[in-house]
Parts: sequence; structure tokens; C-alpha cells
Amino acid sequence: MPLPQQFHDIAERVNNWGRWGPEDEIGTLNLITDETVRAAAACVRTGRRFQLALPLCQDGVQTGVVPGRVNPLHTMVALNLEMFGPDTVATSDDVVTMGLQAATHWDGLAHVSHSGRLYNGRPADSVTAHEGARFSGVEKATRVLSRGVLLDTARAAGVERLPGDKAVGPEELSAAEELAGTRVRAGDIVLVRTGQIQVLLAGDKHGYAHPSPGLSVRAPEWFHARDVAAVANDTLTFEIFPPEMDDLWMPVHALHLVEMGMLQGQNWNLEELALACADDGVYEFLLAANPEPFTGGSGSPVAPVAVK
Amino acid sequence: MPLPQQFHDIAERVNNWGRWGPEDEIGTLNLITDETVRAAAACVRTGRRFQLALPLCQDGVQTGVVPGRVNPLHTMVALNLEMFGPDTVATSDDVVTMGLQAATHWDGLAHVSHSGRLYNGRPADSVTAHEGARFSGVEKATRVLSRGVLLDTARAAGVERLPGDKAVGPEELSAAEELAGTRVRAGDIVLVRTGQIQVLLAGDKHGYAHPSPGLSVRAPEWFHARDVAAVANDTLTFEIFPPEMDDLWMPVHALHLVEMGMLQGQNWNLEELALACADDGVYEFLLAANPEPFTGGSGSPVAPVAVK
Amino acid sequence: MPLPQQFHDIAERVNNWGRWGPEDEIGTLNLITDETVRAAAACVRTGRRFQLALPLCQDGVQTGVVPGRVNPLHTMVALNLEMFGPDTVATSDDVVTMGLQAATHWDGLAHVSHSGRLYNGRPADSVTAHEGARFSGVEKATRVLSRGVLLDTARAAGVERLPGDKAVGPEELSAAEELAGTRVRAGDIVLVRTGQIQVLLAGDKHGYAHPSPGLSVRAPEWFHARDVAAVANDTLTFEIFPPEMDDLWMPVHALHLVEMGMLQGQNWNLEELALACADDGVYEFLLAANPEPFTGGSGSPVAPVAVK
Amino acid sequence: MPLPQQFHDIAERVNNWGRWGPEDEIGTLNLITDETVRAAAACVRTGRRFQLALPLCQDGVQTGVVPGRVNPLHTMVALNLEMFGPDTVATSDDVVTMGLQAATHWDGLAHVSHSGRLYNGRPADSVTAHEGARFSGVEKATRVLSRGVLLDTARAAGVERLPGDKAVGPEELSAAEELAGTRVRAGDIVLVRTGQIQVLLAGDKHGYAHPSPGLSVRAPEWFHARDVAAVANDTLTFEIFPPEMDDLWMPVHALHLVEMGMLQGQNWNLEELALACADDGVYEFLLAANPEPFTGGSGSPVAPVAVK
Repeated sequence: MPLPQQFHDIAERVNNWGRWGPEDEIGTLNLITDETVRAAAACVRTGRRFQLALPLCQDGVQTGVVPGRVNPLHTMVALNLEMFGPDTVATSDDVVTMGLQAATHWDGLAHVSHSGRLYNGRPADSVTAHEGARFSGVEKATRVLSRGVLLDTARAAGVERLPGDKAVGPEELSAAEELAGTRVRAGDIVLVRTGQIQVLLAGDKHGYAHPSPGLSVRAPEWFHARDVAAVANDTLTFEIFPPEMDDLWMPVHALHLVEMGMLQGQNWNLEELALACADDGVYEFLLAANPEPFTGGSGSPVAPVAVK
Repeated sequence: MPLPQQFHDIAERVNNWGRWGPEDEIGTLNLITDETVRAAAACVRTGRRFQLALPLCQDGVQTGVVPGRVNPLHTMVALNLEMFGPDTVATSDDVVTMGLQAATHWDGLAHVSHSGRLYNGRPADSVTAHEGARFSGVEKATRVLSRGVLLDTARAAGVERLPGDKAVGPEELSAAEELAGTRVRAGDIVLVRTGQIQVLLAGDKHGYAHPSPGLSVRAPEWFHARDVAAVANDTLTFEIFPPEMDDLWMPVHALHLVEMGMLQGQNWNLEELALACADDGVYEFLLAANPEPFTGGSGSPVAPVAVK
Repeated sequence: MPLPQQFHDIAERVNNWGRWGPEDEIGTLNLITDETVRAAAACVRTGRRFQLALPLCQDGVQTGVVPGRVNPLHTMVALNLEMFGPDTVATSDDVVTMGLQAATHWDGLAHVSHSGRLYNGRPADSVTAHEGARFSGVEKATRVLSRGVLLDTARAAGVERLPGDKAVGPEELSAAEELAGTRVRAGDIVLVRTGQIQVLLAGDKHGYAHPSPGLSVRAPEWFHARDVAAVANDTLTFEIFPPEMDDLWMPVHALHLVEMGMLQGQNWNLEELALACADDGVYEFLLAANPEPFTGGSGSPVAPVAVK
Repeated sequence: MPLPQQFHDIAERVNNWGRWGPEDEIGTLNLITDETVRAAAACVRTGRRFQLALPLCQDGVQTGVVPGRVNPLHTMVALNLEMFGPDTVATSDDVVTMGLQAATHWDGLAHVSHSGRLYNGRPADSVTAHEGARFSGVEKATRVLSRGVLLDTARAAGVERLPGDKAVGPEELSAAEELAGTRVRAGDIVLVRTGQIQVLLAGDKHGYAHPSPGLSVRAPEWFHARDVAAVANDTLTFEIFPPEMDDLWMPVHALHLVEMGMLQGQNWNLEELALACADDGVYEFLLAANPEPFTGGSGSPVAPVAVK
């Protein structure tokens, strides 16, 4: 079943192809300017830092639903090995096998295609088994550090966490922006909190996965209007799941990654940060969230740090 | 052959065991205070950002010398897969297998032991095959962001890069500190540039590996005196290789990781940053360099960003 | 809690240490002589062949209970890649990550130790992270081909499959031997059918794992008396699970692998073979079941073929 | 550059598409009948067994030339782990990551396509990243056991090993068949010895890879005339490398795998077997060489056993 007209209408309104030239491979990261970064640094008032990543371990968030997206398997290849003789310095060394999108991660622009196209009109089949993504591989998304703004849609709605059937659209984003007390600007990285990760932290992986609140198909226009650089949240699927429309799966992925060329992040643990923001009423911060530069990667784990 | 007395003498002088309590697992990261972080933010003057990580790919820096420390093997598990039917949104997904210390990385504190002990006196055999590091695993090293200072020992010596037999000790560090025009302080992350990575960038992996300039066994006392939080450089082995003394291999690893409890980083590409520092004469910056939180990991890839 | 006296008593009676010299690393495989193999070939009457391995795939028998024993993750590293130009011969290539004992496999002798010892008195700590098993690694177990005898304990008991609390001991083995109509001899490989794998084939992985019938702690003496070369069955844990005695876990593993030095196999699909044996009343056959020679491996996948 | 006419002419003469029906996925393995297997068993005269596989280890035959075809990385996930309490039975467990065609292996039929087609006319794009080979995956190639015949082309030529520029064609195969003293028959598995693996065993991986003797583009017709079930040899590339014609790479792969639907094996160590055959003048034997059933696999490691 082809994508519905509603999707194409939105796609047209948020499309960024050609905006930074025909060769561009990083999309909205272009919006992070030196000035943006100076403003991000100016957000550091207390110096308090927050870790936003989940631990990377075999007992991770994946349940096997996405074939091949395996939780990190961490194994030791050396254990206190005295390479240079007995009673010398000994080393331990390890190896990991993991899906690049298994835990707290960025979706790279090449993660999704539709109608045979990737961001900026590149052909979908330029992603290959032997090279990965020739265009817009996650290794092109460098130096990801900007002003972060927390949009706590759960708190704005007066709940601990949004219900599983709640689609976060322009109204919810604007309400959370108002709560934040700062207008989202060009080049910002927006963190949308739904509270859904509480389900995971309570030990229920399947309940975390679904049903899950998440972004609505109407959200991308809001982000596009403000020209944000990237968006992340605290859910597994990023957008509401099951989807809003029966015949339209993963529309937000397609709008953000393909049309806008915008990184999106999942499984970010925003709980501690949200408490601190609620406490002092300041919802902006410096955010360092650089992906690992996997050549040709469709995504990457990331260990973001927010600094208030 | 047991470790020589000279080693034990230095070890005693730099030892931090118990300094942050008997349960501490993060060592000198304790030195990064909120105040340090505010000072780091204040270093952002232009907003210009620098990527310090090498790309993660099969053609990486490892040559097979360290068994099991394999270069990243990146494979696709889905290619434009239309999970929800024909002509819908399609996804690509990937998996990686890699040594955690294969490319630009942090050595975690559990990477090295000597005399049966890890940092803070933990037993070396607390690192196991099934759990990895029970104490001081790299997932404990969170929120690594501080003031960075570049000590460009090559430039201070008036050369493009240090020769392969050059051990960087207190004299070289102090000379570079003078060039930097800022005194290294408690909680700083120090980046020591030797220029050796130019050999790698020119395509010679084996020449990069060895012979290689690097830190001298006399360097840890210098770092200890200034109470730095972490040190990274632009070489494969971090310390000079082959070593200064025939009967003492990897002493700097043992002093930093075991005695001091200090993260150390390798294979950091400091070339572009160094040019910029030389250009404007400012060698301090905000440095975001958070490891991926692999539970029980002896190390982690890192994608550092410096902001001037 | 130390191993009970009952275990040590049996261990003494079945122990093979030193029997084939102090350097021996293959144990009861020594019992497969040229004469045994000639007898195996003489069992081929119809030429009909049977595949005894389960498919190796992500959706395998492992459920995550044994940490690290991951189901096979199969990924493509090339897809119809025309390495030598357009319109030439194209190649596809793949990579797998898997636990060596994830599916149909042999336990190697180094898979288990007790009281600090492996088979033939080797120290348990000779198995290391960087080398694997220095002694009795599965690569030493070469040329595994012999006469196979099916002991269908389910059919001998007149049931489709044994109940989950049934321990297969000497009485059950002797009854199945009588049904087989051939006496088990030195050098034979014995396949013990319980029918438990029907639960797996019906789609219930957890029910397959547990509760499960399997070999009793009293079975090893029976195998030792007949000097068999190896034993395999159609269960996940090989021995009855949960175990017969609360304070004695995995005793059969310890007796077979450590004391006797005997390979044991798990997750073998014996259903089709058993039907054919029941049909013609002949329970002996040629069995080719050579493990993959992983250097230092504690086990190996195997794709056995029985020929009647 | 499209495939030359000469290739298409041969392809037409050896093509087996449709021969075993439009749904067939195993090609010439259909030629192994019960009668063939009985004849194979009758070849067992002494009961002496030969291991034909190289060990599977990190220091394997791959040199990085084929991207992603990595040597086996074997790591321990448990080391003498006492899961059930102190002083109990302890287990060691391991994981491997490897290219399925890294060492001694079978090429599966889906390993190669040409002109957009796989064996039996299946579309090449039926091999996908998420499923692997939908048709003719190596898991379909079950119960591979037949009569083996050694064609020792080196000995027939009176040399220790063939020179690197020697293409083995019909003349060489017929001469070796005459030396063997048995006519190759339908359903046989032919092992072609060139002696090239001596270079590897002497420690020269690069010299082993190239230049290498191997099968000529003219060999497939010889195999087709005799209707053999499969062919393996003792080289890395199977066919002569560099190839006989500048504009035709891997033609033997395309003829065997795509046109004939015939498994082909590489890196088989035939040295010990060849000595024994030369010694007693008998070049036929029972050959058990069943691949591991990787679902969707383009190939598989194999640990063949020959029994004379």
C-alpha cells in the first residue's frame, strides 16, 4: 500500500532537500552554528552534569522484535594477561557485538528511505551490504554539541508519564515549551520527555516497547518551523506505537530522516535531568551528544551529557 | 620478572587508593567538580568545534598484534526493508563487532592490574569472563566533560612530530604547558600531542604502532602533581614503545590506571585542533569525551568533541 | 556447598585419567579404532541418510538463560557484489556470531571442571580468556565418526516422549538397548532419545528447556561399563533438569567431561531417525558427527549425519 | 564489461536448471542416491580416518582482502563459572564471530550470481540483508556424505605442488583420474589436490592466496560429464588466480554454483590423505562433509572426514 496523500503533503512542507546544496549529507546539523554553540556554553550556570544513556549490556532493551538488532554482547578476550612475563603488568581486553541502534542511540539519516530515496534525494540502494551507507552514514554526523532544551510533555500535562496512546503533536510541544520558559531556536537539540522509560526502569521491557506514547505525524512541522538540529526522546520507537493511522507506519521517521535530514534519538533516559529542570525551572542546557563515527552506519550508540 | 623497585617508588608517590573512600570506582574523575565544568564552559569563546575521533571501520588502526582487539566489523542486518508492506517506509539496520579499544578510546580503570590488584586495591580476579569488570567498569565513568588543555609537545620542541624514541616526561610537559599559556589545574583533561598520528594518516599503520613516542614513566608524577582528571594522546600505545626500560613494560598504564585511578585515551586525532590552537594561541577548551557505558567494560570507544 | 560423597564415589568408578597416558586430551575418542570404523561402515545397509542438526538461526533454542550463549546472528557483508565491474560475476558473503553451544552441538572436554580440575587432571585455570582451552580444546576432537546406536528410551517406555521429571538411568538404557537389539560396544556413539525435542519443534522453547527429562547421575556408570566413545541426546541440558538432587547440579556433565573425558551432545533432532529405526527394527548406523575445530573451544556446533 | 561469449557457451552446456524441477534448491546433491552411499560405505577397507579441516582460529587464512570475511574470533563468555555456588561444578562457555567462508568451507549455491540470476533461475535479489539466501541457502544442503575420490593433479604431474600459473583442466583431471585407478561416477565428491596448501602450512598466507593454481574454466564441463555431486580443493580461491582471462573473473564459481548448482569447497587440507592414497594406491573413500545448516547462509565451515 503506497504512502497516503496526507504524508506527501506534510513531506512537501518540511522538505530540506537541496537547502544546503546537492552534496549535503548532514541536513539539519548545518543549523548548529558557532553562535549556537556559544549560546549553549552560556547555558552552563551550575556546572552540574547529567548522564542520559542507558548502560550497554546483554540485558538491554531489545526483545528480539527487530531481527538482528541485538543487545550488546560483551566478552573478554584477555583477563589480567601478563604478556611480558610473570609478575609484570597485566591487561584485560574486551570485544562487543551489538546492534548500532540497540540502546541509547541516534538514528542516522540513512536508517530510513521511502519511495526509493534517502535524504537529499540519494537513491536508497546506495546503502549496501558491503559499504553500508555511502551517503549520510553516521560518521558524517560529527561534532554534535549544541544547546539542548527539554520539552517535558508529561509534566506539562500534569502526569508522571503519558499514556500509551498519546501522540505528541504541536499542542503538546507548545505546552511543554511554555513550561520550559524558553523558545526553541534554530540549531537547538530538543529532548522530548514522555516518561515512558519509567516502564523500562521498572523492569518491563515489553510494556516499554508497546503501547508507547511518542511523536505524532504532526510533530515534524513544529520542529521544522523552529529549525531544530535534532530531536531525541525516552521511548523505544520514537513515534507513537502502534501508529496513529493503520496504513501509515513510521511516518515520523520518514519525515525527520528522509525529508528534513534530521537526526533523531531513542531510549534516552531523561528522568534525572527532568527532575533537576523542574526543580530550578531552567529547561535549557549544554548538550554533548556526539555519535560514534561508524563508517557507513545507519545509526550509532551515543552517551549524551547535559550540563546545566 | 617482578616489577623493579623504581616502579614501586613512583607508585607510592602517585597512589590514590582510599583518597575518595574505599568504595570509589572512578578515581580522578572525582576531581571534575561543578566549578571545573563552569570553567570549562567559560573556555568557549568562538564556538568552533573539533572532532577528535578516527572513523570506526574495518580498515582501522589494529594490525592483529593485540589478539582479539579487532577492528570494527560493520554489517547490515536490514537494507531498505519494507517491514510493513510494499511502497511503505523502509529501514536499514546494522550490527558491529569490535574491540572496545580498537580505535579512538578510553582505557577504563579495569584494563590493567599489577601485583594482583586493580585501582583502589580491588582484586584483579574480580574481572571475569562472564561479568567483565565488577569494579571500575567503564560504565562507572560517566559524564566525562571538563576543561581540556592541549599540551603540544611536538610544537614546543619545534618539530612536526616527535621522533619514535622520544619519551615525554616532566620537562616536555612543562615546556608544552608554557607554550599553552595556561597552567594545568585539578580536574582538567590533558591532551598530549606528539604528532605520531600523522604516520597513520599517511597510511602507515605499522610505522604508527612502533617505534612510537609516548609518555615516559616519569610523566605520571607530573599529572599527579596537577591532579588532572584524565590524559589522552595521539599514539597507539600511549606510552613510549618500545619502552624506556627493558624490564618494565607498560609502567605508565599501571601507574595511571591502577595507582592513580585515571582514565587514559589513545588514538585521538589532535591535528586539526592543534593547528587551531597554534593559530590563536589559546590551548584551553571545553572537552566532551564521554565513554559509552559498556557494563563491565575495560575500555570504550569515544568520539570526543573539543570546543574553543 | 562442596560436591557430595555420592558424586565422588561414582567419579572414582568411572575415572579415566591416565588411561591413555598423562598427555591425553581426547579421552574416550581413543576407543574409536579402525576396527570400530569398519564395523560402522558395515552398518550401512540401505544408504539412507538422516540429518540430525537443527537449523542455525537467530530464532534458535537459546532463551537468554545462559548469559552469552547467543543464538546465531547471521549477517550479510556482501550482496551480489560485482567486485570486478558491472555485469560480471557477483558474490554474496556472510558473517555469523554465535555461542558455540547455542544449537546442536558437542560439549568439549574443557566445557566443565570441578574441584579445580579438567579431564586428565589438567588445572581448570588452563582455560583462559585469550587462549580458550589450552588442553582438550574441541579442535583436538577430530575425525568423530563411528558406529551409532539409538537408544530410544521413550519408545522403550511406550510413550511419545518421557515426562519432564524422568531421569534416564541404567534401567532405562538397558531397556532401550534391548529394544535396539544390539549390544552397545566400545567405541560406539550412543544417541539417547527422550522425545523432549518435540516440545521445541512445537514452538515452545521455554517448555523445552525445563522441566526436561535427561540423563541420571547413575547413567555414566552404564556408559563407562560399555566404554562408549560419546553420548548425545535430544534435550537442552542433557541431564535431567531440574536435577535429581537439590545440592548437586550438573553431575553428569562433570562425570562425562571431567572424569571420563567423554564428549556429550545436546539438541540433536532424533525424531526422523527414530521413526526409521522403529520401522525397520535396526537401531545401529554409521554416524558422522565431526565438530568444527575451533582452537581452544569448549564446544562446537555439529551437523551430524546418520546412515542406515 | 559483460561476460564473454565463451562463458555463455560453456554455461549452456553445463546448465542444470530445471533438471530436478523448478523448485529445486540443492542441484547436484540430488545425484547422491542411496546406492551412491552404499558404494561409499563399501570403500571403507581399513577404517583409517583423515581430518581435512584447518583449525578455526584468529590466525587463519584470511588476510583482509575480502572485506568482512573475517577469521574466527573466539572469546570466552564464562570461565570455570560456578553458577550454583562455591565448590560446585563449573562451566566455561564461548562465542565466535567469523566469516562463514573464512576457513575450510563449502561455497553454498547462493554465494554467486551472474546476469541477475542464482541457480535454477532464482532472482539474485532474493538474497537479502535480513534473510540471507531465501533460495538455496546452505541449510538446504543437508546430509552431505558420499563416495569421495582424490584427484591428485600434483602427483599425476610428478611435482610436489603445481606452479602458481597452472590451470587444472580436463587433461589434468583425466590424468589424475587415471592415477586414481577409479572412474569418477555420478554422485561422487571429487577432491582436487594441487599441493598449494603447503605454502600456507609453511606460514606464507599471502603466497598461498596468490598466485595460486586452481581449476580452469574448462574444468566444469569435465565435472558435468561425470555428474559429480560436489568438488573441493586445497586452495583459497578454488579456481586459478589471477584468472586465465583478463576479462573473466571467477567463471568457475559462476559455472559450478549458478549453472550447475554444485557445491564447491576451498581450503581443504588434503596432504595427509594424499600421502595415504599414494601409499596404498587407493584413491576412493567414504567422505562425510556436511555443512553447518546456517539458515540463509551463502556458505558454511565444514570439518570433513575421509575414511579409507
